[in-house]
Amino acid sequence: MEYRFAERVRNLSGNAIREIFKVLSDKEMISFAGGMPAAQCLPAKKVKVFADELLSSQPVKMLQYGQTEGYLPLRESFLKYVENVGIKGYGVDNALILSGGQQGIDLMFKTFCEVGDKILVQNPTYLAALHIAKTYQLRPVGFECGEDGVDTEDLERKIKEHNPKLVYIVPNFSNPTGKTLRLETRKKIVEIAEKYGVVVIEDDPYGRIRYKGEHLPSIKSFDKSGCVVYLTSVSKTIAPALRVALAVADEKIIRKMAVCKQAVDVQTVTLTQAVVDQFIRTGEIDRGIARSLPLYREKAEAMLAALDKYMPESFVHTVPEGGLFIWGEFTDGTSAKAKFREAVENKVAFVSGNDFFADGSGDNTMRLNFSNATLEQIELGVKRLGAIFSK
Amino acid sequence: MEYRFAERVRNLSGNAIREIFKVLSDKEMISFAGGMPAAQCLPAKKVKVFADELLSSQPVKMLQYGQTEGYLPLRESFLKYVENVGIKGYGVDNALILSGGQQGIDLMFKTFCEVGDKILVQNPTYLAALHIAKTYQLRPVGFECGEDGVDTEDLERKIKEHNPKLVYIVPNFSNPTGKTLRLETRKKIVEIAEKYGVVVIEDDPYGRIRYKGEHLPSIKSFDKSGCVVYLTSVSKTIAPALRVALAVADEKIIRKMAVCKQAVDVQTVTLTQAVVDQFIRTGEIDRGIARSLPLYREKAEAMLAALDKYMPESFVHTVPEGGLFIWGEFTDGTSAKAKFREAVENKVAFVSGNDFFADGSGDNTMRLNFSNATLEQIELGVKRLGAIFSK
Repeated sequence: MEYRFAERVRNLSGNAIREIFKVLSDKEMISFAGGMPAAQCLPAKKVKVFADELLSSQPVKMLQYGQTEGYLPLRESFLKYVENVGIKGYGVDNALILSGGQQGIDLMFKTFCEVGDKILVQNPTYLAALHIAKTYQLRPVGFECGEDGVDTEDLERKIKEHNPKLVYIVPNFSNPTGKTLRLETRKKIVEIAEKYGVVVIEDDPYGRIRYKGEHLPSIKSFDKSGCVVYLTSVSKTIAPALRVALAVADEKIIRKMAVCKQAVDVQTVTLTQAVVDQFIRTGEIDRGIARSLPLYREKAEAMLAALDKYMPESFVHTVPEGGLFIWGEFTDGTSAKAKFREAVENKVAFVSGNDFFADGSGDNTMRLNFSNATLEQIELGVKRLGAIFSK
Repeated sequence: MEYRFAERVRNLSGNAIREIFKVLSDKEMISFAGGMPAAQCLPAKKVKVFADELLSSQPVKMLQYGQTEGYLPLRESFLKYVENVGIKGYGVDNALILSGGQQGIDLMFKTFCEVGDKILVQNPTYLAALHIAKTYQLRPVGFECGEDGVDTEDLERKIKEHNPKLVYIVPNFSNPTGKTLRLETRKKIVEIAEKYGVVVIEDDPYGRIRYKGEHLPSIKSFDKSGCVVYLTSVSKTIAPALRVALAVADEKIIRKMAVCKQAVDVQTVTLTQAVVDQFIRTGEIDRGIARSLPLYREKAEAMLAALDKYMPESFVHTVPEGGLFIWGEFTDGTSAKAKFREAVENKVAFVSGNDFFADGSGDNTMRLNFSNATLEQIELGVKRLGAIFSK
């Protein structure tokens, strides 16, 4: 039978990272591709203890239908938790529990955008945001990242030129570049958003993974008018497969997102929400992060050293203060994309940088994840990359 | 700040059942509203045992990112499980794990429909399908249910008239009417779908909840051309808040749905998928269903008796052989919708039938769930309804 698929999916290819994911089942493969936390940081024992307690003390609550807006204790504790990035004075009507942070991007595009709408994104930006934009047939326009992640002059220029409803920004250890917005940039973004009536999606899954320097308040913390929607997730700080995240926004926006969430997945799994609530209330989330930071720092430094040792002179890279990624660029125009297949054949995977650019440029760039591989794998994998790119 | 919401959500009200859900936090309320399994059927102890085993034996697998298509052992065991409705000969590329059955409807509409497209639905049909249709700005057209749930002559007439890509059908103990398609109807639906190149979404969450009569093969079991997408869920047979369900379809459709799922929630929670896999592999799912059936039958009979005792003469209702619902109608045109608020004030909730009709008719109908209330609550709640509707 010939299927009459919708226009939105007719030429839609898979999300590059998800597609790469499939080749990683090869046990010999060294992956710098996904944004996976280190295996030894995944707190299975604690999850077990909390899940046991919850299933014993509240068996019906954990298994029966729950509210679309989220498990109430978690909405409360998560709101309390984000006070650490300066998000204060919000109530449960400002909070929506999400089935992973990415659902927040999806629900925001669904709530705000028509087919053909332009949205502004960092250039480069998180590739899943570009993938989601395709499913709504949006036209993402990139603005320059400048030194810290957002060139606010270019942002304002592009807003005037394209009149977008939404601007999507990863403020801390940006995916893919690892850049972090300065304090002044955060304030300026709110000023611009208010001036032009634009809503900013502040996507912050990495903010707590800082192993150097000082934490900064969120963009949302400067928002007095309701122009910022803050998203954060426990995928990098507890575990990705729990699929639990949070949106904080004006209650008019939360209400629209919740009505859309009713239509997409009814509710997030209650047990994983309640487990995350326990991680937050007991402080276990912060103890886990504290344990992971020296490890991530060690891995980042190992990868930086290996890159300097094995990669050709034309390869330059960022030196992150946190997060999970190093961003690399070949100044001589060498195409990382063209070598991807060869790399996989040599049992090392990365993400070709072009997938992060709204305009499809960036063939000469690559994103390297250092959190999931072991120190030995980092050394060996970068050595393999060096051999491939030095030919 | 004034928000520039998308057209699709500007006038979108909440899913009626989800909205009713919020009033149910009142402990005095007797609810016949949701489609909730009985609390005593929720297998918290078994979930705990399986979750413990899985977190001990496969700690990283349970918490690290997994494939969008689903946890491989579950795709295999779930495909084996649906052989009991005659779905045979399919491989894992024909299976997609969903975050609840409703996600299957959402992904199908996303994969197939443009703004303004018509889809065909039973009249009345599952209200969430109508709600999802609104989020894609579709135009649902109802066809007559006839005696068993699908009047195939009217279905064919409406296909010819409206040229839809999709037909949405609940084949067993249909939500809301409780009707079940005869064998001949199932075969005829496939014949019509093939003739006109229409895809049928067969949504089967209730099929196993049969306490009278014989199980029938699925519509999908007669499909040789790939025209049927089968959806089933464990929300009614294990527990709703696990959010695990299955789609079986031609691999071209599964691939498109999976690429869309990448964009909406990346993956379903691994732990709940693996727990469901254990329920299926150990046979615990069927033992649980077997334990629930006498209870559901008893509750259904108690509600039927109470309705006959307390409701006015003009009230007629179905007598279901399975599922979770009784469907009622006032032959004198009494509006159930108009009395809903009074019912809630009197601490008894139902779902007004009009929410299930594509054309918004059916004010004189109501859906009553009997699985979640106790026998005492059923007697008392129907007595309250009787008093309200006999005035």
